Amino acid sequence: MEKIIKFSTAATHFYFAAAISKLKEIADKKMAVIITDEHIYTAHSKKFSGWKTIVLKPGEQYKVQPTVDEVIQQLIGLQADRKTTLIGVGGGVITDITGYIASVYMRGLRFGFVPTSILGLVDASIGGKNGIDVGPYKNMVGVIRQPSFILHDMNLLNSLPQLEWENGFAEVIKHACIKDAALFAALEKNTLKDYQSRRKTIAELVERNALIKIRVVQKDEFEKGDRRLLNLGHTLGHAIETQYNLIHGHAIAIGMVAACRISEQLSGFKQTERVVQLLERYHLPTHLDFDPGKVFEVLKMDKKRELKTMNFVLLDKIGKAVVRAIPMKQLEQIIGGLNQK
Amino acid sequence: MEKIIKFSTAATHFYFAAAISKLKEIADKKMAVIITDEHIYTAHSKKFSGWKTIVLKPGEQYKVQPTVDEVIQQLIGLQADRKTTLIGVGGGVITDITGYIASVYMRGLRFGFVPTSILGLVDASIGGKNGIDVGPYKNMVGVIRQPSFILHDMNLLNSLPQLEWENGFAEVIKHACIKDAALFAALEKNTLKDYQSRRKTIAELVERNALIKIRVVQKDEFEKGDRRLLNLGHTLGHAIETQYNLIHGHAIAIGMVAACRISEQLSGFKQTERVVQLLERYHLPTHLDFDPGKVFEVLKMDKKRELKTMNFVLLDKIGKAVVRAIPMKQLEQIIGGLNQK
Ligand SMILES: NC(=O)c1ccc[n+]([C@@H]2O[C@H](COP(=O)([O-])OP(=O)(O)OC[C@H]3O[C@@H](n4cnc5c(N)ncnc54)[C@H](O)[C@@H]3O)[C@@H](O)[C@H]2O)c1
Ligand SMILES: NC(=O)c1ccc[n+]([C@@H]2O[C@H](COP(=O)([O-])OP(=O)(O)OC[C@H]3O[C@@H](n4cnc5c(N)ncnc54)[C@H](O)[C@@H]3O)[C@@H](O)[C@H]2O)c1
Ligand SMILES: [Zn+2]
Ligand SMILES: [Zn+2]
Repeated sequence: MEKIIKFSTAATHFYFAAAISKLKEIADKKMAVIITDEHIYTAHSKKFSGWKTIVLKPGEQYKVQPTVDEVIQQLIGLQADRKTTLIGVGGGVITDITGYIASVYMRGLRFGFVPTSILGLVDASIGGKNGIDVGPYKNMVGVIRQPSFILHDMNLLNSLPQLEWENGFAEVIKHACIKDAALFAALEKNTLKDYQSRRKTIAELVERNALIKIRVVQKDEFEKGDRRLLNLGHTLGHAIETQYNLIHGHAIAIGMVAACRISEQLSGFKQTERVVQLLERYHLPTHLDFDPGKVFEVLKMDKKRELKTMNFVLLDKIGKAVVRAIPMKQLEQIIGGLNQK
Repeated sequence: MEKIIKFSTAATHFYFAAAISKLKEIADKKMAVIITDEHIYTAHSKKFSGWKTIVLKPGEQYKVQPTVDEVIQQLIGLQADRKTTLIGVGGGVITDITGYIASVYMRGLRFGFVPTSILGLVDASIGGKNGIDVGPYKNMVGVIRQPSFILHDMNLLNSLPQLEWENGFAEVIKHACIKDAALFAALEKNTLKDYQSRRKTIAELVERNALIKIRVVQKDEFEKGDRRLLNLGHTLGHAIETQYNLIHGHAIAIGMVAACRISEQLSGFKQTERVVQLLERYHLPTHLDFDPGKVFEVLKMDKKRELKTMNFVLLDKIGKAVVRAIPMKQLEQIIGGLNQK
């Protein structure tokens, strides 16, 4: 089902619950170049037949400038020009780098995405942020530019590894926590297996979650207000992700529980136990015995020294998040106390 | 004198006939980083005192990704963030690369230019096109984004080499040819020495030329119509520039004369001799005994094979340019005949 979604600078055509074979109606095979990674290409090679395809090595460590350089060389070799459409078929790494290359090659080509991971479908492909990492700095270089289209094909999920499902469901639970209590209740009734085995159930879940992110981005494309709510669990999450080498979904699951506990103390939130249980239901960790001093150091470095407060996303109740400026001193104390529970 | 010029996507503050010392009112010294090159830094080092400055090696061969990578490392080292303003102080190479870096670092910082060459003042700094070269392909990677401000300081021209003056005047004469017969007449009365020695005269010339380019870009920011007029002399110019290793101004001077002769044949243009004499007055070459076959090959490669015509900028009369689609066969014949005159 096609939906045209308007952002402040451009419109994106969403093809929910579609099939990748529809791509040829959206982009001219002769004029398009697909960018994907080896995992996806190997699992679905037939779907790429007849398309010019650039296949990258999979993994965050390739979301860097040398990969961009290499792709640009290949695009020149393929005589890609301003009439070419670039299509990223993959997880967030592929869509981030494809959107970036399409924004700078010849000062910008048309581009679209076929996200293939849950995280990509409900989060990374949406919102127009794209870019690459620079050394340890994630997403340090990039631009904001909306794709022309995003196409969903649930069949591609057949090959998605179990860990990547869990990774993506951390963002789904995040969406439920910040914006959608009914979604939270639905997740409490189902299991990951249900979503993995029922095409229609996962398609509906993905669309509902995509629309949550779309609505937040529409209100706040350039990240001045509401878009920050999407960071629930991510501030502390990012600090422990790098320090303890966790996968992103695990880190933010732990970060969300920490945010719940901070919310208990600062805004009388009372539903931490339900959040913990939902995360566990989806095989996500809810606790890590981290070193509060070290984690606080990382949080502090994130900010300019002169700032005395830190913006933190808290929960008022399930389905309603708020941003709160917490004095650094107080934050240090609270984080110090988290692991005593 | 400050003028706010609106483009379709943003506004640029122009400070014509100003002084670089005014920069500190436009950008906070503590929050800004200047990017310049060794020639300019050496000649005007005092003007940079108190500013964080990144000094690049001069020359087109450094307008490439490795330089971007290096600058980004330095920006990270300087803790540049979204509140930082990047200021390019230099010729077109510096402003092109500064605009590009400012557009992608942390998904975009505020930026402005202090153009220091004639070509930079009247052409390269204006219009928001920025970017870098990829191997032999000029400006292959970049974005279109308008600077927040452009400041002119004629004192910086004191150190500009003679050849760079001539280079820039080729674009000045181009502007006169395509849009401004009165400017053409004024140029016929003055000499390069006049402009080099009289601050007010050069300031007025630069402003008038900047406004010509500004008006063309305003009408056609994304290059669908009028902006192509700026390519007078550039189609053939680019072909001989690379092939005969000419400086840009010399190549387009020769290209403009060729465009005049083609205009004679196709639209009854009758003022070639005046154009030739004006170019000579400003020490620019008007003829090259190039190999027409080789040059035509380069022109052809520029285009997709299936295109049977090539858009060429011709002159109706001095001050009025037009774009005309010339069949490739006819173009080949005309170019073949050019050197017989
Ligand atoms: N642009 C944004 O707004 C935004 C938002 C969130 C995350 N991100 C980015 O997204 C990235 C993470 O996304 P991700 O988790 O999808 O990463 P990813 O692209 O690395 O995919 C994860 C793994 O799953 C594999 N995979 C993906 N789909 C598959 C499929 N259908 N079958 C088999 N294997 C498959 C990939 O090859 C990879 O090994 C990060 O780089 C992050 O910065 C961007
Ligand atoms: N963005 C655009 O729309 C646009 C338009 C035209 C040209 N350009 C680009 O501009 C570049 C050419 O511009 P340019 O000719 O100014 O090149 P440039 O920046 O290389 O400058 C030419 C030379 O003059 C020196 N120089 C400049 N100002 C000086 C000064 N005041 N004192 C002493 N030395 C000085 C430089 O160090 C360099 O050696 C090309 O890369 C071209 O692609 C861009
Ligand atoms: Zn996340
Ligand atoms: Zn030029």
